[in-house]
This record gives sequence, structure tokens and C-alpha cells, in this order.
Amino acid sequence: MPYFDAASSAPLHPVARQALLAALDEGWADPSRLYREGRRARLLLDAAREAAAEAVGCRPDELIFTPSGTRAVHLGVSGAASARRRAGRRVVVSAVEHSSVLHAADRFALTEVPVDRLGRVSAAAFAGALGPDSSGEGAALACLQSANHETGTEQPVAEIAGVCREAGVPLLVDAAQSLAWGPVDGGWSLLAGSAHKWGGPAGVGLLAVRKGVRFAPQEPVDERESGRSAGFENLPAIVAAAASLRAVRAEAAGEAAGLRALVDRIRTRLPELVPDVEVVGDPVRRLPHIVTFSCLYVDGETLLHELDRAGFSVSSGSSCTSSTLTPSHVLRAMGVLSEGNVRVSLPLGTAAADVDRFLAVLPDLVSAVRARIGAPAGPVAAAGVEAGAEAGEPLVLDTLGRRCPIPVIELAKLLPRVPVGTTVTVLSDDEAARLDIPAWCEMRGQEYAGEHPAERGTAYLVRRVS
Amino acid sequence: MPYFDAASSAPLHPVARQALLAALDEGWADPSRLYREGRRARLLLDAAREAAAEAVGCRPDELIFTPSGTRAVHLGVSGAASARRRAGRRVVVSAVEHSSVLHAADRFALTEVPVDRLGRVSAAAFAGALGPDSSGEGAALACLQSANHETGTEQPVAEIAGVCREAGVPLLVDAAQSLAWGPVDGGWSLLAGSAHKWGGPAGVGLLAVRKGVRFAPQEPVDERESGRSAGFENLPAIVAAAASLRAVRAEAAGEAAGLRALVDRIRTRLPELVPDVEVVGDPVRRLPHIVTFSCLYVDGETLLHELDRAGFSVSSGSSCTSSTLTPSHVLRAMGVLSEGNVRVSLPLGTAAADVDRFLAVLPDLVSAVRARIGAPAGPVAAAGVEAGAEAGEPLVLDTLGRRCPIPVIELAKLLPRVPVGTTVTVLSDDEAARLDIPAWCEMRGQEYAGEHPAERGTAYLVRRVS
Repeated sequence: MPYFDAASSAPLHPVARQALLAALDEGWADPSRLYREGRRARLLLDAAREAAAEAVGCRPDELIFTPSGTRAVHLGVSGAASARRRAGRRVVVSAVEHSSVLHAADRFALTEVPVDRLGRVSAAAFAGALGPDSSGEGAALACLQSANHETGTEQPVAEIAGVCREAGVPLLVDAAQSLAWGPVDGGWSLLAGSAHKWGGPAGVGLLAVRKGVRFAPQEPVDERESGRSAGFENLPAIVAAAASLRAVRAEAAGEAAGLRALVDRIRTRLPELVPDVEVVGDPVRRLPHIVTFSCLYVDGETLLHELDRAGFSVSSGSSCTSSTLTPSHVLRAMGVLSEGNVRVSLPLGTAAADVDRFLAVLPDLVSAVRARIGAPAGPVAAAGVEAGAEAGEPLVLDTLGRRCPIPVIELAKLLPRVPVGTTVTVLSDDEAARLDIPAWCEMRGQEYAGEHPAERGTAYLVRRVS
Repeated sequence: MPYFDAASSAPLHPVARQALLAALDEGWADPSRLYREGRRARLLLDAAREAAAEAVGCRPDELIFTPSGTRAVHLGVSGAASARRRAGRRVVVSAVEHSSVLHAADRFALTEVPVDRLGRVSAAAFAGALGPDSSGEGAALACLQSANHETGTEQPVAEIAGVCREAGVPLLVDAAQSLAWGPVDGGWSLLAGSAHKWGGPAGVGLLAVRKGVRFAPQEPVDERESGRSAGFENLPAIVAAAASLRAVRAEAAGEAAGLRALVDRIRTRLPELVPDVEVVGDPVRRLPHIVTFSCLYVDGETLLHELDRAGFSVSSGSSCTSSTLTPSHVLRAMGVLSEGNVRVSLPLGTAAADVDRFLAVLPDLVSAVRARIGAPAGPVAAAGVEAGAEAGEPLVLDTLGRRCPIPVIELAKLLPRVPVGTTVTVLSDDEAARLDIPAWCEMRGQEYAGEHPAERGTAYLVRRVS
């Protein structure tokens, strides 16, 4: 039963399991105590810190363990941004950061740097955001992920670190998705990671703060972890986290080559096998194991359910699978199709046969979902003009109250029935429409003429041009 | 090799180990995902929450898991006190709360309620602190431990909960030390616990917030754990925590009786075996497994070291073992002797033979430590008057720069050499002197006449009366 959601949580690495078991027996005591059980725990903690620091590329006294990657990000952002309050209140982030970064930065004044259609920030845009804003407010901190958790797109961290250094703004790198594959190059100031993303246990994050980086912990005093992360050390899990990071690094080069080839196979074959699919993210500068695609006229939750029934565990950035009713902010920032979205993230050791089986079952599943929902097939021009409207006379398509992917499907059904040159106004109160109507227009070669607020929801203007 | 520091961290309960192993295989996926691995994780999480809630005595939807007991306290205090900011900024606590409570409350305006010499708060004193203070500032929250972590003294939680209800102030109970023994009675509003204190794994705390209690999370948004504790759920440890809580509760009555008898043996025999020892804490209303005592003229760190060499792992509230150079705030609040302080906290299943061996080796160890440091023996009156001072003429004993227990030893050597009626002024810059000089006077039947600031350190006045 292939599990293809390693980017959410990787199955426990055998080395992690082994180390955890050993540390349960040796490392349950308080490492701050002076008796033998405490000294033994302290030795384990020190050794784990050294191993983790070596893998991260920092000094052991620059690295602390936290209870999760989320906490590492929260503590890192609040500690670094608060320490530089006098330099400014703004925290500059890419628009595709993990929600933990966005929410932590949101406690300050958030400045989002847009990304291109592949999901990458540019050094120029980032540099522009680092200076004082129109009200003179400076930047306290910048945050950039090493690679994106939904698309695998790698960010130009070393380049952005240079830009930040130039501007005198510390850079926090969220390396949660990439630490398994190698250290993060470049002159970053802070770095956060999460053990269960690399095959370590839950309950462990890490935060590196380079010497000389100003840091002001914002939480109640606690002497543990250099006063930067409160609470009794989760020692067995920390030991397992460090041991497994070392282990996955030792396998990284071989695993990366294998998984990269499998993802390439998906990226290449998918558009051949499934009509109207958009594979998103950077095809080259990417993590080896993640690929994301969106399927036109597909309800993401239904597709995930069908894939689960077929034995494949994947996740989705579609709004239809989320309780928030909005599509993933990553897909939104990239401006790509969000409906029928699927993220495949392969764990270490994924068998080629499983990927082939995925490619074998997916086309029929997508067809079935589309058929059930009544999706139209083929380009707009192929369908005859049936509607009675005159050329140039505006038409209104009311999809209020309908959820993704219905508004796009209704549009796809209507447009062939209006004459070329007609502008259709689609009314929708579904957040996904903002993303998916323009994406549909691009895929179908039709003109997207913008949006404006309507009495209810939003009006999206689409002009038939072929 | 007996480990007698269960109050710091209990050895992992076999049931915890078993549950953890099973959950490592079944519970590594993200419980918010809809595929089978996620659903399986969700089932485990729900079952653990139900088991923990039942043990705590609350509804499952009132209980969240946190990464540690410290975090449970921090989140509980900040969430509850912030939600009632308009009622007042003050957080009322007993003076003997755990440091995690004091530090969390210190972010607001801290009001400490004193305790008696046994370490208990009175309902009257607590009630007095709940009303508006002299500047009209009201209380947002009250915090009281169910039992003390250093002395085992139980607090009158049910009574104080009534007082708080009367005053309309929510009560947070820190039940870290007592949850293994049973639920906390009384109408508390919030309750915090820590799994590694009851034989569960590190990495898990719990926080219960009763329905209807106002709560405003102060941390960056995160949808997990009802939006009250951020970060990926540490599921295998949570499962192990809940399973072991249930297991220790099943054994609690029998274990409590056995350990209570062993602690009684220590409380009774110790003063017979070791001269000048003060057993502190409530002899009756106490946890079954904790006993704390202090030994006059003994350097706590040296004694701990000797006990460790003899195979006994214990902890101490003496300043001489702490990096902060101050004695435990608990001993300070009780006004008891702090030098040569030892806390014995017995884990489940402690053998009577180990306690007997402890009682057998301790007297010689204390004697040896005292002999090495040159401690005087016997009462003051037994020594002859040797000093040349006239009766009533003040004498100054300069112990500046000397650390506990030296100032007290120097005083004990000098006083027999001055005539009865003489007042000796002891100059000391050691924080422990504030506690230990009055305690010595009480033990030796001499008059402690108060303190005042000196040019360096503090002057403590002691009058020889016998």
C-alpha cells in the first residue's frame, strides 16, 4: 500500500526506531541532574546536538532542540524579529512559506514577496522588500524556505542570503522539507527543521541561531536549551532525530537520484496520460521527491478518496479538501490551477513499480470523477455555437453558492455556446474561482478580462476568443 | 542502583514503552489527513484523548495535549489570564508553585500568597489576594499546585477552588506531581499535567480547560489541538502517555500505601539516625512518595555527590547545588533550613530494602561531610565562653564571599565563645544565609534578631540566649 505523502510526515526510519528504543532505556532522566542517570542523559543530549549541528552546518552551541518544527519556526521568528524591533517591525517572507512561518510573521507586520509561476522568489523582488516601506518601517527579519512543501520548488537561498546580508537583515531559513537531502548553503542567520519530515520521530524540531545574531526569547524564562525552548527535553526522540538525520544523509545521494528519476517519470508521463492536467513547480530546481499537479474539472477531495481506495495516500492543496474553503496559498501565489490538485511526495525507498501502478490507475480515476461531475471534454472551439446571444452582448453565468470545480465546469459548458467575441461574466463566491477561472482561460486559450466585486461574490470576466 | 528522584522524571512505565512501540508503527502519519494512515493516527489520538480525559476528570473536548508540562502551564496561564485582561492583570499564585507557573505568571502582574512552615496556603490568605489590590487591579487568574514538587505537601485545592469561584476568578491547577495518584477534586477551571512525571514518555503534557472558561490563545494560529497548542502532534508519545496514566492509576492505591509507609519510615528514622536534621513538609497531607529534609552544616552538593557514589540518585533544593546561587524558592517560602537539603522521591515499586540501605548509609555520609567541613557538634551552651568580648558588646562576624554552609558554621563556632546576652552581627552575601541563619537559631534555641542591609551583603543579628 504505497504511502505517497512523505512531505506531510515520513514513515519512521529504522535507525530512528532503533535509537529511540535504546534512548528510552538510557535517556529518561533529567539531563540537568548530577547523578548517574542524569549524566547519562546529558551525554546523549550533547552527542545528539553535535550530530544534528554537523548535519545542519553550524556549531553545537548554535543549535537547540524544540518540540516540533512549528515551534522552531515560531520561536525563531519571534526571538529574532523581537530582538530587532528598533530596526523595524516588518517581517519579509516569500508568499509561499509554510503556514507556520506566515502565522508567526503575522504577529509582526507581514510583507509578502511574490513568486513566479514556478513558485520562486527573485532576488530583486526580495531586495526591494527589505528596505523601509512607504511609511518608513524597516525590516526586522526575512524568512525564506529552502524548498517548498507543496511543489518541491527550491528557492535561491544563497542568493537571497547575500541580499539580506547587504541589507543588514537576518535571514531565517525554513529547511523543514530539505534537511534530509543536505545542509542549506549560504549565509543564513537562523534555520529551522522538523524531524518527522526526514524520518525522525514526531516531537522534535531544531532551531539554529548563528553566533552574533541578535535573539530575544519572548517566552517565560526556562533555563533549558539555552533559554530558548521551554520544557523538559524530549530526549529519546531527540536522540532518534539526530541518529536518523545522520542516516538519511548517508543515503541521500543515492535516494535522491532514484526518486528524482521517478518524479521525472510522473512529470513526463502524466500530461500524456491525463488530459487537461497542469504539472506545477520548477521542473529542475526542485526537491527530488515531490511533484504536484492539478486536474481540470476534478473535485480534489473525491480524487483523493478514489486514490485512497486504490491504495495511494496523497495530499492536496485544493480548496475542496480543506475545511477553510480556500485553495492552498502556495498555488494561489503561483497563480496556477487549484482544482483537482494532488501532491505526490515519495518516501525513501519508493519502488518504481508503485509509481508505475499510480500512473496506471490515475487516468481512469480522473476520467471517472470527471464523468460523474459532468465535465465537458475538448477545446472550446470544437463545440458548436448554440446559445442565442449576439456577438459582443454580455452574458451572466450565476454560480453563486456552487463550489469548486463547478463554476469552471459551468463556464466550460457555456462558452462554446456563445459566439466568439462574447464576454461572459461569471458570478462566484467560491475562493477557488479566483485562481481556477484564469487558469482555465490560459489552458483553453480564452481571454481572461479581470474581476470586480459583485453584489454577492465576485464577477470574473471571460471573453471567448476562439 | 536505587533511583530516588521520581519527582524529577519517573522511569518509563512498561505500559508506556509497549504503547509507544505499537504507536510508532501505527501512529506516525498526520492525523488531519483523510487517507488510511491518517485515519489510523486520528483514531489513536481520539482514543488517547478519551483515556486521558477520563483520568483527569474532564470531557475529551476539554483536553489538549502539549509538548510538555511546562508548555501546558505556559499556554494555560497565558490563554486564561489574557482572556480576562479586562477583569485585571494580576495572576495570584502560591509562593511554592513550580517555576514554570511562576515564570508564566510573571508575564502578568504576579501576586504571591505565602505558605506556612509546612508549605500550605490558607484559604483566608488566598481569598484576600483575589480581590482588587491597593491600586484597584483585579485578579485575572489564580494558580495552585495540587501538591508540591519538593516537599510533597498537598494544597487544599477543593477549598481554594471554592474561594476562587466565590471571587469569580478561574483557578488553574498544576497537577504535575499528583496525577499519577488520582484526579484533582474540586471545581478547578484549568488543569495542567506532565506525562514523564507519571511514568509516561517525555514530550507530552496535557492541559484541560473546562467548557465556559474564557480562553484566548496568545500564540501564532495553528489549527491543531483546538487551536491551543501548535505543532505536529507527538502521537506515539501521546498514546504512551495516556496508556501509562491509565496503568499507573490502576496500581495507584496499592503503590500509594507501600510508598507512604516507606516515606513514613524515612520521616521517623531520619531524626533518630542523623543529628541536626530537619524533615520538612506536611507529615500527613502529602503525596505518598516524596520526603525532603535538610542537614545542618552540610554542603548539599557534596552530600549529593556522596549519595551518588553510594548508588543513590536524589536531588536537592540547596543553593550549593544550583547554578543560581539561591536556595529553592519553596524552602525559602516555608522558612526552613536549606543547607544540606535532600529530596527523596520514590518511583513506583521501590523496594523496602533500598530505603533501609539509604537509611543505613546516610548517617555516615553526613558525618563525613560535616567532619570534612569542620562543623561543630552539640548545643551552644555546652561549649565554654572563650572569647574576650564583654557581655552585651556587639561582635561582627565577617563571612562575606563565603558560601553556604560556611556562614552558619562560623556562627556556630563563634557563638559559644561569646557571653550569653551578646549579639553577633553576621555579614554575608550568600542568599542561603537569609534562610539558614534564622533556621539555625531556631534549631539551637538562640534568638534571631532580624537583618538589615550592610555596606556589602546583609547583616544578620543573632543574640546568644543560652
